[in-house]
Amino acid sequence: MTNMHPPLRNDRFLRALLRQPVDRTPIWIMRQAGRYLPEYRATRARAGSFMDLCRNPDLACEVTLQPLERFPLDAAILFSDILTVPDAMGLGLSFAEGEGPQFARTVRGPADIARLGVPDPEDDLGYVMEAVRTIRRELGGRVPLIGFSGSPWTLATYMIEGGSSREFALAKGALFSDAPWVHQLLDILTESVAQYLEAQIRAGAQAVMIFDTWGGSLNPRHYKEFSLDPMRRIVERLPREFDGQRIPVILFTKGGGQHLEIMADTGCDALGLDWTQDITDARRRVGGRVALQGNMDPCALYADPEHIRAEVTRILAGYGQGSGHVFNLGHGVHPKIDPEHVAALVEAVHTLSAPYHLGT
Amino acid sequence: MTNMHPPLRNDRFLRALLRQPVDRTPIWIMRQAGRYLPEYRATRARAGSFMDLCRNPDLACEVTLQPLERFPLDAAILFSDILTVPDAMGLGLSFAEGEGPQFARTVRGPADIARLGVPDPEDDLGYVMEAVRTIRRELGGRVPLIGFSGSPWTLATYMIEGGSSREFALAKGALFSDAPWVHQLLDILTESVAQYLEAQIRAGAQAVMIFDTWGGSLNPRHYKEFSLDPMRRIVERLPREFDGQRIPVILFTKGGGQHLEIMADTGCDALGLDWTQDITDARRRVGGRVALQGNMDPCALYADPEHIRAEVTRILAGYGQGSGHVFNLGHGVHPKIDPEHVAALVEAVHTLSAPYHLGT
Repeated sequence: MTNMHPPLRNDRFLRALLRQPVDRTPIWIMRQAGRYLPEYRATRARAGSFMDLCRNPDLACEVTLQPLERFPLDAAILFSDILTVPDAMGLGLSFAEGEGPQFARTVRGPADIARLGVPDPEDDLGYVMEAVRTIRRELGGRVPLIGFSGSPWTLATYMIEGGSSREFALAKGALFSDAPWVHQLLDILTESVAQYLEAQIRAGAQAVMIFDTWGGSLNPRHYKEFSLDPMRRIVERLPREFDGQRIPVILFTKGGGQHLEIMADTGCDALGLDWTQDITDARRRVGGRVALQGNMDPCALYADPEHIRAEVTRILAGYGQGSGHVFNLGHGVHPKIDPEHVAALVEAVHTLSAPYHLGT
Repeated sequence: MTNMHPPLRNDRFLRALLRQPVDRTPIWIMRQAGRYLPEYRATRARAGSFMDLCRNPDLACEVTLQPLERFPLDAAILFSDILTVPDAMGLGLSFAEGEGPQFARTVRGPADIARLGVPDPEDDLGYVMEAVRTIRRELGGRVPLIGFSGSPWTLATYMIEGGSSREFALAKGALFSDAPWVHQLLDILTESVAQYLEAQIRAGAQAVMIFDTWGGSLNPRHYKEFSLDPMRRIVERLPREFDGQRIPVILFTKGGGQHLEIMADTGCDALGLDWTQDITDARRRVGGRVALQGNMDPCALYADPEHIRAEVTRILAGYGQGSGHVFNLGHGVHPKIDPEHVAALVEAVHTLSAPYHLGT
């Protein structure tokens, strides 16, 4: 099946992740298929709930492709949610309107752990794999497709707390209590995420990203043990080549700027940077080993196109000459952003980045 | 009036801030007068609303002293709110039960700026000054009294957004739009906070702390211009000695660990550290210039006393030998914490820190 895919017509994103020469800095945008697009809101309304949209491969494909119709983005990202894995473990995920995610069942001790198994990606998360296959086919080689998962620690916080949390009282309380079941939970999640991402790669994902949304909430000791180490084990497990192509792995710990060196040590290909990091400093620290993805503050898109262009100019100059930079926001695009401002961003990155790639 | 104060019987906190020898590492706890204490909840219920409690100097004094009755803490902190200054500017602060702060009026443009004046601390914030005087008198020299304010940028976020925010769409959107009124707002706030803290010092505060809760949400360029620079101007303005005593200034930017060097450059005496920082690393970077305050994760207090003690051991060892460390949490104590766990923390810090101060 895999050799049926047409050749990739725009490989800037994959080349930049591997620090190979490119003509322009590639750009994609976290949550590029999202509520700021009226066509997304229309499909979402047709689908029913947010999870109904995630579980419908044809509609997931439709919304994945919507931003590519509007903007000359250099990558597509699977439309899904980071919490599909714990949902497949039987925790019962739902999204109340205007609220964050909610689990019907939580994991707060050994008895809960005993009920958890590693989901089979094709049996238990078949809708995701089908979405990956559908999107890859419909992309027809326009741009590469990114697969993704939440990090084990990030998934664990939601499973323990039962939903979003500001303080992670229960999850971090368990870490400070050295509760053995937390280690077991992270082991199960590490295995589950590794299998899930490998299955996405086999289904057609051409790069994968691990979203560690809540690793930055940990102290450095806990970060290394409970957030970074599971991600390192996943990176080591993943096939680094598939169908004759290198499959880059991107790690993104929001608020993890101080950890870039040890993140690069995992063997990943690229690091996501949130906007609180200085990209010049990040490149100096780890740019010889990994590519960097980021890192414009999503709030810059509230400004007018002229000011967006000014911020793009600063970030491109901050990274400097040569490949190894994938432009992105430092976090997902906000729902109230004007799509015209996103158009201005993409245009600015492509136009203003050309001089940084001359003669490379 | 000032020479009426009895001499300080426990000056560990002030000595540690000035990196002078101490016999034990001093400890106080952010929000030590707070909802985790049943006696606080009782006073709060008697007072009426949260702001009624803040505005009543006798009750503010009562709750300030409550944690000192229970635990041998080394400092008291004025019971108040960071948003008293914008409230005194006429924005109408309230706290709905179970919700964050709310302003009746917001600041979103030049017309709103034109209506803002610098509050006179004694006329417009007399209840705070009266609370400082009352608490200082009632402390009777047991421990020093800390005064405080929110940082100009932190106050600005609430004034612009109208309350708490996760994303700061309006406040940061204004920064990216280079809106001139934001600079004016920060200038007014810088002057207001400087006058407010100076008045607290004159009323009896023996150290002051600037809480920059939201500086860490900015990119490094905006942090320097909109959060750090106003704080630097305040530090330069404050009287560094009063009534024959040095008045230490503590800066605390939550999530600002990467900025410690430029924070120390402001001329402050100490930096607050949140729990995401490694205290060994922080001391190596700036410990020759400033004291460090922090930095146990508040969630460690959900663990049992034995595990709390283990975490205290790690942090004390992380700072190492000698003075210049004020133990604290990396953020406020959570409302559901068992007061017995706080007792275990204070006891552990005093007992376990003694060896680090031998022969110094």
